[in-house]
Amino acid sequence: MTAIEIAGLVCAMPITVVDRVQLGHGSGGRMSATLLSERFLSHLSNDALAQLGDGSVVSVAGTEIVISTDTFVVSPLEFPGGDIGSLAVHGTLNDVAMMGARPVCLTAGFVLEEGLPIDVLDRIVRSMSEAARRAGVPVVAGDTKVVERGKADGLYVNTTAIGAADPDFRPGPTRARAGDLIITSAALGRHGMAIMAAREGLAFESTITSDSACLVELVEGLKAARVDVHVLRDPTRGGVASALNEIASASRVGIEIDEHALPVPDDVRAACEMLGLDPLYVANEGVLLAFVPPAEAARALNVLRSYELGADAICIGRVVDAHPGLVALRTSLGGTRIVDLLPGDQLPRIC
Amino acid sequence: MTAIEIAGLVCAMPITVVDRVQLGHGSGGRMSATLLSERFLSHLSNDALAQLGDGSVVSVAGTEIVISTDTFVVSPLEFPGGDIGSLAVHGTLNDVAMMGARPVCLTAGFVLEEGLPIDVLDRIVRSMSEAARRAGVPVVAGDTKVVERGKADGLYVNTTAIGAADPDFRPGPTRARAGDLIITSAALGRHGMAIMAAREGLAFESTITSDSACLVELVEGLKAARVDVHVLRDPTRGGVASALNEIASASRVGIEIDEHALPVPDDVRAACEMLGLDPLYVANEGVLLAFVPPAEAARALNVLRSYELGADAICIGRVVDAHPGLVALRTSLGGTRIVDLLPGDQLPRIC
Repeated sequence: MTAIEIAGLVCAMPITVVDRVQLGHGSGGRMSATLLSERFLSHLSNDALAQLGDGSVVSVAGTEIVISTDTFVVSPLEFPGGDIGSLAVHGTLNDVAMMGARPVCLTAGFVLEEGLPIDVLDRIVRSMSEAARRAGVPVVAGDTKVVERGKADGLYVNTTAIGAADPDFRPGPTRARAGDLIITSAALGRHGMAIMAAREGLAFESTITSDSACLVELVEGLKAARVDVHVLRDPTRGGVASALNEIASASRVGIEIDEHALPVPDDVRAACEMLGLDPLYVANEGVLLAFVPPAEAARALNVLRSYELGADAICIGRVVDAHPGLVALRTSLGGTRIVDLLPGDQLPRIC
Repeated sequence: MTAIEIAGLVCAMPITVVDRVQLGHGSGGRMSATLLSERFLSHLSNDALAQLGDGSVVSVAGTEIVISTDTFVVSPLEFPGGDIGSLAVHGTLNDVAMMGARPVCLTAGFVLEEGLPIDVLDRIVRSMSEAARRAGVPVVAGDTKVVERGKADGLYVNTTAIGAADPDFRPGPTRARAGDLIITSAALGRHGMAIMAAREGLAFESTITSDSACLVELVEGLKAARVDVHVLRDPTRGGVASALNEIASASRVGIEIDEHALPVPDDVRAACEMLGLDPLYVANEGVLLAFVPPAEAARALNVLRSYELGADAICIGRVVDAHPGLVALRTSLGGTRIVDLLPGDQLPRIC
């Protein structure tokens, strides 16, 4: 404890010296951002990393390659609607797709805990294989390490994917412009709440299933239709709120979203209310947000709705000149509130 | 227990049903190979994975890209001669280099354990950054996950690297030919024994330091000199014995190595003797094995010896027509013994 003076009053208060990694550092919120900038970017900084997109564009022998990496530590390993194997394929392919590239191949690096039942491993590798096959993207290299019992939690897996960048289709987090409309391709909050319900053994009236899915075909559809997409983002860890905050900050624009327009399924909404969670911060694994100029919005919606995954695509907000860097929610009651980054974690280990 | 009949005798014997992951599955030996083929290749099989090299060659928009992935779980995180950060850079860059490609960029995916001291993380990320900078290969994308205390061991990190394949320089594990001479670029066994000594708190007369190093310049040197290298391999997990066994098997050739020629430092040899370990199976992280036709051997040695890392390069054996798929050691006493894959682990978690 130490003492500080606020408005003439001397108060005793705890000073939190963050000298150890905390769970909140993995949240996708403000603590994650601080860890990233202070502990990683400070050492590893370069132009590519500084883009802070879902991956990077690098030139290899004159060809522009998109590369993205993601490690999956979701608990439990298997959950309604998916498992860590298919999730690890979808998550990383989606990150490459969000940069406008069509993924070409994947790598997979496993950490296995001693004692993991082989039949669980079998199911997860088979699920990974099927997800890769459905996406038409082969797993071309892999690695397996084993650690002692109690040094992991069943298994963790890293996937890294590469794709060919498309010079004519380059959405990016810095490209949001005032006037852009913001479209979500599907309903929000299903993945995070499916994990939460499975982990906590919560019984709701219906089983909430994860939306884990590969978004590549949606992006290829937008590309083929030559929609001028300014920003694409899959609102995973930290949910829509965190994704929009990052974009508002990267593009130095304001963002407004309309509470009444947010497509939150009834079961997700009920579960969130019961647990005191805000669906805007809950992870999605089969949703993309697209920022498009108003003149392109109808066409973008038509394209997305032509796919099963995008059947419920809807406009949820817009980019504004006001309050650059901030995300505002117009509530159903007519008010406005700021949707900030959460400091730490609402839901740890959801991906 | 069950009963089997051998030569007319009925014997009771234990049947080991492997229904859970065991530490030996991470050894780089026979159990690893079985896990790979039965649990991964059976589901994920494709032409690229089936090459079983240190990575894969894939075509992206007409450009041949080499990609390799590796996850590092070494314990302890810091050891004489390196740490998990620099090791993760060297290990994956070396894998790309062993395929004849010059690495272009790296990704890094961290799993952090809650409670990891931030100053340890800082040192490791700085070390990773410095290793990447020395190699001239930027870390262009990353990811960080945090798991609860007791669900990891400080930190694990996956690195994935890509490079441009060189159509004129394509060493591969299937390209060993009878007559080829086998060169090691440096002394053997230092990394594994440095880890073992650090982990077990063993005090030898001198501190054994890891050889962890980036081998890219050696490979670029061989390439620039247009040496016709048939096979390149860094004998990491499982050591020289496992690497040679994989090559003998992939190329369907026999391999002979000369015990008297094996460069094992005195301190490594003494430590191995004390612990009952065979240096042929101990991991190296700064050594390459090159298979070259006899007419190229002198030039290859000259090139390697022109670098500090390759100053002790020496020929240790040859490829023969006899005993395809097997590795034989000519002992100093004039005998011959087969150097087989170990079934399980001699040293767990050395990389």
